[in-house]
Amino acid sequence: MDPLRSPLLTDLYQLTMLQTYLERGMTETAVFEFFVRKLPENRGFLVAAGLEQVLDFLENLRFTEEELDWIRRSGKFAADFADRLEGMRFEGEVHALPEGTVCFADTPIVQVIAPLPVAQLVESRLINLLHFQTLIASKAIRCVLAAPDKLLVDFGMRRAHGAEAGLLAARACRLAGFAGTATVLADPLYGIPVFGTMAHSFILAHESETAAFESFARSHPDNVVLLIDTWDTERAARKVVRLAPELAEAGIRIKAVRLDSGDLAEHAKKVRRILDEGGLRDTGIFCSGNLDEFRIAELLAKGAPIDGFGIGTRLDTSADAPYLDSAYKLMAYAGRPVRKRSEGKATWPGRKQVWRRLDGDGRWLEDRLGLHEESHPGTPLLVPVMQGGKRLHPPEPMEKIRERVQDGVRRLPEAARRLRAPEAPRVTPSEALVDLARRLDEQAEAAIV
Amino acid sequence: MDPLRSPLLTDLYQLTMLQTYLERGMTETAVFEFFVRKLPENRGFLVAAGLEQVLDFLENLRFTEEELDWIRRSGKFAADFADRLEGMRFEGEVHALPEGTVCFADTPIVQVIAPLPVAQLVESRLINLLHFQTLIASKAIRCVLAAPDKLLVDFGMRRAHGAEAGLLAARACRLAGFAGTATVLADPLYGIPVFGTMAHSFILAHESETAAFESFARSHPDNVVLLIDTWDTERAARKVVRLAPELAEAGIRIKAVRLDSGDLAEHAKKVRRILDEGGLRDTGIFCSGNLDEFRIAELLAKGAPIDGFGIGTRLDTSADAPYLDSAYKLMAYAGRPVRKRSEGKATWPGRKQVWRRLDGDGRWLEDRLGLHEESHPGTPLLVPVMQGGKRLHPPEPMEKIRERVQDGVRRLPEAARRLRAPEAPRVTPSEALVDLARRLDEQAEAAIV
Repeated sequence: MDPLRSPLLTDLYQLTMLQTYLERGMTETAVFEFFVRKLPENRGFLVAAGLEQVLDFLENLRFTEEELDWIRRSGKFAADFADRLEGMRFEGEVHALPEGTVCFADTPIVQVIAPLPVAQLVESRLINLLHFQTLIASKAIRCVLAAPDKLLVDFGMRRAHGAEAGLLAARACRLAGFAGTATVLADPLYGIPVFGTMAHSFILAHESETAAFESFARSHPDNVVLLIDTWDTERAARKVVRLAPELAEAGIRIKAVRLDSGDLAEHAKKVRRILDEGGLRDTGIFCSGNLDEFRIAELLAKGAPIDGFGIGTRLDTSADAPYLDSAYKLMAYAGRPVRKRSEGKATWPGRKQVWRRLDGDGRWLEDRLGLHEESHPGTPLLVPVMQGGKRLHPPEPMEKIRERVQDGVRRLPEAARRLRAPEAPRVTPSEALVDLARRLDEQAEAAIV
Repeated sequence: MDPLRSPLLTDLYQLTMLQTYLERGMTETAVFEFFVRKLPENRGFLVAAGLEQVLDFLENLRFTEEELDWIRRSGKFAADFADRLEGMRFEGEVHALPEGTVCFADTPIVQVIAPLPVAQLVESRLINLLHFQTLIASKAIRCVLAAPDKLLVDFGMRRAHGAEAGLLAARACRLAGFAGTATVLADPLYGIPVFGTMAHSFILAHESETAAFESFARSHPDNVVLLIDTWDTERAARKVVRLAPELAEAGIRIKAVRLDSGDLAEHAKKVRRILDEGGLRDTGIFCSGNLDEFRIAELLAKGAPIDGFGIGTRLDTSADAPYLDSAYKLMAYAGRPVRKRSEGKATWPGRKQVWRRLDGDGRWLEDRLGLHEESHPGTPLLVPVMQGGKRLHPPEPMEKIRERVQDGVRRLPEAARRLRAPEAPRVTPSEALVDLARRLDEQAEAAIV
């Protein structure tokens, strides 16, 4: 069973419900929407991401013989359940915000329209894919905002939560504007530029720091970035200066040095001076080590002469907000809009659309959340991406998604973009939507009594 | 390329260093150790986990033709580099704490002894696997400590960071003492019991709550757990009471109700009363919704009559501490111990061992960290698990690991076990280790000047 594609990568209740739906003939069309209920404290907006992997998952959804066998042997289901699943495919519709769209709480990011059983089955993996990439893209864009003109590289795979998290984080960071990632596999899988040179172990395995620098430079003459904090950062910077002429004779340029510990602002200033005085004005300073958008902003505010940042653990785990309050909820079944009213978790009912209005200068003005059949001024954000279980378009080039992110962010109010205590715009529900919600509540009230 | 097994699931610097090591003939034996530098604020101990997946990864390490092709085409490496990688296998030794061992900061959890190039190559994925499962097992055990006699189920896959995180979190929770998980695929992959019944969408898709309850009960007569918070929790509890006699006639018992929102303590008390008065004393109350060890402890402290908990997002993301300050560091090369001294990141040098002493009553007394060749009273915790690239033992039964966790936790001081402001025991470095560290620092100092 393929851990990344198996339809058994779901919650058990999806299968128990599915059996009941099939038994009771509850196979009419359902509308589910994935959205975020509430933004974390330090997020003024979200960057929608993960749709590409969702479409891939839906297009390939099927139970293998091995999976059907497990269902038969598990003792958890009716005797004929596995047979009923055998031909199950996703043949529904998907409407979605294009990846990279800037959005807010309550906005449907992906809308699935399909027979109830299959639309239900895919819930867990859809959330899993959309939640994580949206989480990371929405964190990564903050690093870009903190250091708009710097080289940003994702360093986080080792402490990302598993392999897929490392890979998808690399993708989400790239979408948000990063130069690339250290994770090699992200290049063959997604075409993301990869970066990297040496670790401390490389220095330690040589008989001296200078020997390690020289060994690396001669072995990788086009990619000389030397890690200089293994013992004493400034002393190592002086060794770099002393080594440079000899390397220059061999036509080798020292592209940058990397600092990975200590007071990075102080070290960067001192190292910059040492390099400059040593004639290495073109040698950049690259920093890593416990970084995130807050620390980067601090470093730059202190005037640290840093040219690029490797950002790892805190980014790939979205450490200050490691999850989003996201949900995939049934909005209509068999043409009937529905509403969950659980305390603190009530949803806007019905199949919806969002219309975005910009002002005369192209700045964000309003997102209106309404029923799909309404019409409002502005651009509808949800667009059809899958019909009859088939994609309507080939995968979007990453460059296009990156442009969409930058364009969307540029149009946002400054208060939504700032790093600390941002103000997240709220979508405006339409009158028709508010009416429908009230009507459903009244009906529910009447039915309960 | 298999995203979970590819040797390209690594950081680029591992490959650039590897090329240099091969070119310079730096292929002597290296000792690397994986350890945690410092525990997060609310952790008094760690539960080592992830070794099983590490051994599997090491045993199967090889570059496929496709991966070698990528290396050739990437333009990042020397012309003959791919050829040198073709036959590369992991043929080294691994020593490790058995999974489920309770441990602390600075303790080598896994020790890899192999030629430098391959020991370096595997760093990123080893950290990725060990860090995440240790993180989650160390969080899950806190839920077990908060609710030792309750049924605990992992509900977190949907907001775990990707598919592998969801699956490995299910495994880590089970090791720590959970009854099971909602994630279906964890049963065929790891033999973990799975749990689940219905979502709100199931209620909403039916014409009424009672119809949904009845529909489910008749479809799954052995697994009737009814979700009662879609509209009004107490009213729904009364519906359950009214429905019970009819189901009882059909031989169907209502095993439990589930609450997923609102003030769970208040609701649980009211629902308990309604069920008891309705003759459903055997029907349990199961709770979910934004839970973690802190909230569970609060609920139980308030006397909430809850029989089981579904714990999701905050557990699978280890939300209060979403990463550990972990590292995989070179400790010796070619028989020579080495020490990184980067500020705030200095390591204890050399190949090490940890000896654990218990007092006469079997309670934890001391972990002593020393050099491998030393001898100290107590039980050495690192044991050989792989030699010549082959496992020395078949995978450990999960039950055995679960017992090891419970046994280890029982022996800990109360101060290490408590949920808030725990005191994490510290390992004691041996005299020989302290001496060696000082000696290496002096040598480094001499070399720098």
